Amino acid sequence: MKLLYPTSLVLDVDSLKGFSVDLQPYDVKQLIPEELIDAEILVTWTNTAENLKDAAARMKNLRWIQSLAAGPNDVLNAGFDSSRIAITTGSGLHDYTVAEHALGLLLNAARRFYEMRDYQLQGKWPGHLGGPQPDRPADRFTSLRGANVLIWGYGNIAKTLTPHLVGLGAKVRGVARNAGVRNGIEVFAEDSLPTLLKETDALVMILPGSDSTRHALNAERLALLPKHAWVVNVGRGTSVDEEALFQALTKEEIGGAALDVFDTEPLPGSSKLWKAPNLIVSPHAAGGRPQDAEALIADNLRRFSAGQRLKSLM
Amino acid sequence: MKLLYPTSLVLDVDSLKGFSVDLQPYDVKQLIPEELIDAEILVTWTNTAENLKDAAARMKNLRWIQSLAAGPNDVLNAGFDSSRIAITTGSGLHDYTVAEHALGLLLNAARRFYEMRDYQLQGKWPGHLGGPQPDRPADRFTSLRGANVLIWGYGNIAKTLTPHLVGLGAKVRGVARNAGVRNGIEVFAEDSLPTLLKETDALVMILPGSDSTRHALNAERLALLPKHAWVVNVGRGTSVDEEALFQALTKEEIGGAALDVFDTEPLPGSSKLWKAPNLIVSPHAAGGRPQDAEALIADNLRRFSAGQRLKSLM
Repeated sequence: MKLLYPTSLVLDVDSLKGFSVDLQPYDVKQLIPEELIDAEILVTWTNTAENLKDAAARMKNLRWIQSLAAGPNDVLNAGFDSSRIAITTGSGLHDYTVAEHALGLLLNAARRFYEMRDYQLQGKWPGHLGGPQPDRPADRFTSLRGANVLIWGYGNIAKTLTPHLVGLGAKVRGVARNAGVRNGIEVFAEDSLPTLLKETDALVMILPGSDSTRHALNAERLALLPKHAWVVNVGRGTSVDEEALFQALTKEEIGGAALDVFDTEPLPGSSKLWKAPNLIVSPHAAGGRPQDAEALIADNLRRFSAGQRLKSLM
Repeated sequence: MKLLYPTSLVLDVDSLKGFSVDLQPYDVKQLIPEELIDAEILVTWTNTAENLKDAAARMKNLRWIQSLAAGPNDVLNAGFDSSRIAITTGSGLHDYTVAEHALGLLLNAARRFYEMRDYQLQGKWPGHLGGPQPDRPADRFTSLRGANVLIWGYGNIAKTLTPHLVGLGAKVRGVARNAGVRNGIEVFAEDSLPTLLKETDALVMILPGSDSTRHALNAERLALLPKHAWVVNVGRGTSVDEEALFQALTKEEIGGAALDVFDTEPLPGSSKLWKAPNLIVSPHAAGGRPQDAEALIADNLRRFSAGQRLKSLM
């Protein structure tokens, strides 16, 4: 039995040994070579569309694809026969890194590092941001301490992010499809949004991309946020109505927005968002660095060898 | 007995009641009015030099000054008679806010928000900072996870900052006058710096300003840091040799520096630092917002009333 692992990231292959499996590297930017085409298992990471389309057509023995992406749209759209091929995701491999980025964007917003940078580039001291300041004024988002942070899309990334926010003194609540208490955090269904948004100092969006989340944050919901509230999006760009967000920023109806994801990426040069006031553009940099992938692959490899249900199965 | 409290910040005066003390507000930018000049207790925050010099000359009954600054140099230099007037500091009131700012600067450095901003202002997508990335490469500071963070000046701010860094996966060590283990963190004396600096991904400076800390981070010590190491200074600007830092940045001998404090503040327009590569200028914005000042004043007011030793006595 052959497992093909990608050379597009550094993997500690020794951590995958111990199973009756022949571990073989492959280049995700090339077609799978003839001598590897009989592999039963394919691990994918940043494969080209051509590579995947070709693999779907030629890998007749394939039984399992382990993607290292949290949302493996590339694999799902490549034409693999899902009736005989199990597809597992890299869910969990990106929780830490996306949470760290979200925390950084929240502090960038609260401490106004982006505005300080604008001054620095002009050789000007932003004195209004330094020296004696009011402590946590009610009409501004200046600190995580005491801030109401609402996380919309309360899954594993949110669970990783939350302890850091709580540790810094934020009051965290979540929104998800199913209401309940998770890790001690109150999670509400979307029908509570009208109440929750009004009480939010910072809204963190971690929604997946799908038809049901398209423009989840629209003009109507943006209008419910306090004038000082910030929006941070580290989920998918399609979940925010960018035109409505641009209007809200321009009319100063919200405090600002830090976006790591956009409807179209890279953000087109013609986009109005580049120069929207109090908008921070981050180039889809939150994730993209799977961590501890070996542990997930080895765990699933053990399950696969034992005929057990795989983890993070689509 | 009269206590004068400043109107330069919002204080919940009700939280100071319950003692045999007449609580009176005063304007720190004006001279103390005649009817308040007999006060025994003065609380100071951002007083003008004129106000303090005049108070030192005219307040004959003064027995205690409670500054809300961590380092009350303004009070110490005003000419108060220290033989009969106790001076207490606002040590502790700034721990959270300075720690939050330091954390933000560390994430700004690791996630390169300042560089993203430079691109945004030009309407350019910084693609090299987004998409698939190597996970924590050894030759760059890209995440707090697994990073060696050295905190030089391991006092109360460091103790507040450390749990957040440890929670994010950093390996934290400290440097202070006295070696030992504090809150589970190994703190070394300065003679260990040659070894410690070589193993540092991010150096956080929280040294007070004094003759003994002047240019503590000099050319020789900067040269010991790895080429990818960042320096974050939220202590006092005089602790860093700015010319040596500028040279290290320009020659790419370190990864970058995020400075909240400078030798001269505001940073003069003529300073070379404005345009030094990978330098982040923050306008002394880490502190400046005393938190829970009422609790400190009330505690010390109780001690003063009971004839007990005051807290944070100079």
